[in-house]
Amino acid sequence: MNRVDVELGERSYPILIGADLLEHGRILDPFLGASDIMIVTNDVVGPLYLDKLRKILGDRRVHSVVLPDGEASKTIETLQLILDHLVDKRFSRDCVLLTLGGGVVGDIGGFAAATYQRGVAFIQVPTTLLAQVDSAVGGKTGVNHPGGKNLIGAFHQPRCVLIDTSTLTTLPDREFMAGLAEVVKYGLIADADFFGWLERHADDLLNRDTTALDYIIRRSCRIKADIVALDEREKGQRALLNLGHTYGHAIERTLGYGEWLHGEAVAAGICMAAAFAERLGMLSAADRQRIHTLLVRLRLPTSPPQLDAQKFLAAMSLDKKVRAGGIRLVLLRSIGSAEVTADYPEQEMVSLLREQLAH
Amino acid sequence: MNRVDVELGERSYPILIGADLLEHGRILDPFLGASDIMIVTNDVVGPLYLDKLRKILGDRRVHSVVLPDGEASKTIETLQLILDHLVDKRFSRDCVLLTLGGGVVGDIGGFAAATYQRGVAFIQVPTTLLAQVDSAVGGKTGVNHPGGKNLIGAFHQPRCVLIDTSTLTTLPDREFMAGLAEVVKYGLIADADFFGWLERHADDLLNRDTTALDYIIRRSCRIKADIVALDEREKGQRALLNLGHTYGHAIERTLGYGEWLHGEAVAAGICMAAAFAERLGMLSAADRQRIHTLLVRLRLPTSPPQLDAQKFLAAMSLDKKVRAGGIRLVLLRSIGSAEVTADYPEQEMVSLLREQLAH
Repeated sequence: MNRVDVELGERSYPILIGADLLEHGRILDPFLGASDIMIVTNDVVGPLYLDKLRKILGDRRVHSVVLPDGEASKTIETLQLILDHLVDKRFSRDCVLLTLGGGVVGDIGGFAAATYQRGVAFIQVPTTLLAQVDSAVGGKTGVNHPGGKNLIGAFHQPRCVLIDTSTLTTLPDREFMAGLAEVVKYGLIADADFFGWLERHADDLLNRDTTALDYIIRRSCRIKADIVALDEREKGQRALLNLGHTYGHAIERTLGYGEWLHGEAVAAGICMAAAFAERLGMLSAADRQRIHTLLVRLRLPTSPPQLDAQKFLAAMSLDKKVRAGGIRLVLLRSIGSAEVTADYPEQEMVSLLREQLAH
Repeated sequence: MNRVDVELGERSYPILIGADLLEHGRILDPFLGASDIMIVTNDVVGPLYLDKLRKILGDRRVHSVVLPDGEASKTIETLQLILDHLVDKRFSRDCVLLTLGGGVVGDIGGFAAATYQRGVAFIQVPTTLLAQVDSAVGGKTGVNHPGGKNLIGAFHQPRCVLIDTSTLTTLPDREFMAGLAEVVKYGLIADADFFGWLERHADDLLNRDTTALDYIIRRSCRIKADIVALDEREKGQRALLNLGHTYGHAIERTLGYGEWLHGEAVAAGICMAAAFAERLGMLSAADRQRIHTLLVRLRLPTSPPQLDAQKFLAAMSLDKKVRAGGIRLVLLRSIGSAEVTADYPEQEMVSLLREQLAH
């Protein structure tokens, strides 16, 4: 088992990573005390792993809420459903929420933990690659609003993240590859060596080689943990993690949540951001080509679907990354180095966007 | 103008207290920057003070949401209404919410600020005595659940609290006196001298003498600020502020929210807690009598309405102050000194409760 620590003072916590951790006797005991436990999962992951998880919880009082799978259920109404369960079962402030599933389950379950009785403890047990390398780490929780993704939420750090890499064996191909988009992102914003490693091991990844998976999860968690430790509430550097996301969120929103997976939209968004950086003379054509090639090899989209440019721009400008005075974008300087800026020729961005969407 | 500081490290903020502060030119400028502003108010306070408030906001972009007055609107549905406005007006992360009104408006507006885009700034402008001395200070925000008061919420500190004591001139008698219950509470848990002062100046208070009001607001805010600074998230000492509240919340819930005002229920709850402390031999009969006498002079209830004991107990045990292993209560040792404990004979509490409710 490997361990990556997220250093946040009194809110610090470990990420435990390894195969078959859900069979590891009492691995969660140090984080649970004698608390009552509410498991939040969905109707795809629950049938696969709920019994396993219950077994390592011992004889504590355990209840569960099973949500419909998919981004469409990441709403305030579903949040209320979880809160209703907690009230109904008379859970106290000392309870612990356990989120078992992908990003949706983690975000909404974490938000329920953030708001029940003004905040109770929670533990993330991510079962998708995307959640394991990204959404389960760093304390962003929330739900979508019809007007935009994750517009309602809270920063609420988990007490522990338990990554059983064996759960990836049941992950559908499409979701697996979507998770790789966020892994590529880490190489791009922070670690050129890691990006090179991904290029060399793309086939291993597609074959879900366990050693390779273990490595990319650890490395991704390490990079994210370091950025989050520096800027928990995204006042600055943490925004680097949004590379491709302003475009990506606009794709998801304009198409309707759930049409494209988040990671797919992010992959296309990364390519759009790279193209813009190249047009500005920031990123070399060669680097942009490498990014494109790797994403293609990982079977990820490299361009957006055909979309109405006006709607797309409207969707972009409601993205949370917007600050007074213009849309802040993450722009690549080179592979392994990026910056957050609102200082770029906006007309240039818009005209490129029209080309990108009309293709 | 007086100023009381709430010391919370990087989350520190001032409470500004004085007459006619809403006419003070640009008093809020240091806290607003150039931000867009959303005012949350209700249909009673809005017509009285919204125009005044808008005037001191200069030429910033200002929108407002006007909620129905009363505890019944402190729901997740009303929260959504505020969030919808923010999205609809395309407010960014840099916006500021301004809550103008009593405890309901402050709690729900603060919770909207806590959850919009994972947290934006907010400023409390409390216009009821209860909000000025209690709910606007300390960062507790939230909404009610059919299963209990304030069960959903967040800790989110305001950037500033602006108390214009002149707004008390328009406050109905019943609400004014309800606010005094929380003032009495501060004397009881932390400051015997202050309690004595209240006994000597009860008539001044009922006459709304401006000097007396200014004094009790300052002193109450000071006591609350000190307790919050020591224990922001209510792990320990902050629970002292809940004297009378476990009983009080159960009264409100069993009767239906809004039947009794919060402060009225707290006054009765304080008397119930005092009676229990006396029965346990902790509090002297003389002290209990002084408490009773002062609350009567301030025209506050000193006993609960007739209620079904079973329902009442059920309502109590869902109160947030419950911890695994029994209901935690705040018990008085003497006037000016209290403790939080779950270590008391529960049967004794229940049998006294039956007497108190059957009277």
